[in-house]
Amino acid sequence: MPRYRLMLEYDGTRFSGWQTQPGERTVQGMLIGAARDAFGEVGEVMGSGRTDAGVHALAQSAHIDLRDRIASDALRIALNDHLPADVTVLAARLEPGRFHARHDAVSRSYLYQISRRRTAFGKRFVWWVRDPLDLGAMRRAALALRGFHDFQSFTDARPDEGSTEVEMESIEIAEADDLLLFRLRAGHFLRKMVRRVVGSLVEIGRGTMLVDAMSEALEEPRRGAMNTTAPPSGLFLESVIYRGERHPRDLRPAITIGHAFGVD
Amino acid sequence: MPRYRLMLEYDGTRFSGWQTQPGERTVQGMLIGAARDAFGEVGEVMGSGRTDAGVHALAQSAHIDLRDRIASDALRIALNDHLPADVTVLAARLEPGRFHARHDAVSRSYLYQISRRRTAFGKRFVWWVRDPLDLGAMRRAALALRGFHDFQSFTDARPDEGSTEVEMESIEIAEADDLLLFRLRAGHFLRKMVRRVVGSLVEIGRGTMLVDAMSEALEEPRRGAMNTTAPPSGLFLESVIYRGERHPRDLRPAITIGHAFGVD
Repeated sequence: MPRYRLMLEYDGTRFSGWQTQPGERTVQGMLIGAARDAFGEVGEVMGSGRTDAGVHALAQSAHIDLRDRIASDALRIALNDHLPADVTVLAARLEPGRFHARHDAVSRSYLYQISRRRTAFGKRFVWWVRDPLDLGAMRRAALALRGFHDFQSFTDARPDEGSTEVEMESIEIAEADDLLLFRLRAGHFLRKMVRRVVGSLVEIGRGTMLVDAMSEALEEPRRGAMNTTAPPSGLFLESVIYRGERHPRDLRPAITIGHAFGVD
Repeated sequence: MPRYRLMLEYDGTRFSGWQTQPGERTVQGMLIGAARDAFGEVGEVMGSGRTDAGVHALAQSAHIDLRDRIASDALRIALNDHLPADVTVLAARLEPGRFHARHDAVSRSYLYQISRRRTAFGKRFVWWVRDPLDLGAMRRAALALRGFHDFQSFTDARPDEGSTEVEMESIEIAEADDLLLFRLRAGHFLRKMVRRVVGSLVEIGRGTMLVDAMSEALEEPRRGAMNTTAPPSGLFLESVIYRGERHPRDLRPAITIGHAFGVD
């Protein structure tokens, strides 16, 4: 069966995550349904990884096996014609080799958005944090996360789910108008890890947790130690890359929240 | 009664416009309700002008009369505490003089967003136009709109609703990633005028209307002559200014729609 690589965006608000589950509205489930509606029989449909309920994707990567060859653009259009409005296939491409969306991915990039103000437009796409945040303390704490560590303290994955060691390639914090952006890059992430890293950084920014708590949680990993979990609304899977590819460089908001002119 | 100037943003999707109407969910109605909940009695609540059902505001201006003096920030917070999530009071300020949000406004700025692609995030905030558009033709046609004209051809206002002459201060067209932005500025606008100007420009961009149709519609005004009406989802009231103030200079999206990395 010919294999195609897909790039998708989705608004996770009304999805129970990526992965197909009986009786749940999932992105993978919608994609399989759209492919069946368009082409009848369909082979494997596999994403680069799961995203949790409510988490968004600017560019999720997936592969799909079809019975017949079809022009890439016709595939993209046919799938979009059968998908609901909160998922878009941005691009489709025939893969000549044995491409695998999950196994071949070498790095993932996640973006998290905090809003420093109430927003009429962005509620679905941010975590609104009202407390003042000490950005300097958050940046110092974030430094400790870079590199190879056991992130057990930041996940709710069970011990039998495999190693909790992750090489954190980079973590960036930036301000963009009323938004505070966090970008984390790693070969892979543990369940809830990004949201718990951001949650911990916010505790440190608020002063309810010490800067040193971050390196301590890495040096003495304890399951559930860092369990302040940022809400899924602010989280976006930003990019997934394969051998020879690079992540985007510019750190900019996934979705902006309006720019009020003349305030103050 | 002390008078306060308010600046508000709202997502117009679920509103029947600004103006209070019996049995309808309106922004003015919500604002009056929030003020009564917070302060009991409340005086006049007046916006700089109406916005139609489904139209958004990045910075609508209004005034409100209260029985008692209150700190501006306390007023902002009290109103927000009683407003639904799709309206935000961004700022409040005590006005010493006889400020009137509608009569004193000297210029309004509207922003219209067209998306050149399907978007999972931006459906509520754009008009998705699939056809290729000839931007050069649209820009030439837009030039004809500048200055003082009878815009009767672009409104559904009845003849008894007053003059249809408007001084169009500026009209800009810009591209921002997958968005096409239109910004129109004038002392006042007629009902549906921005949406019909944009609708006509899109007809010209598609080639279904000649560039010259624009100047002809101005030179020989005929009610209903230009009745392609762009949907309200793409329209934002961007700013309202008073004597001594200036509109924002940068033309940027009201709300972005996600930036997919690696497409093409």
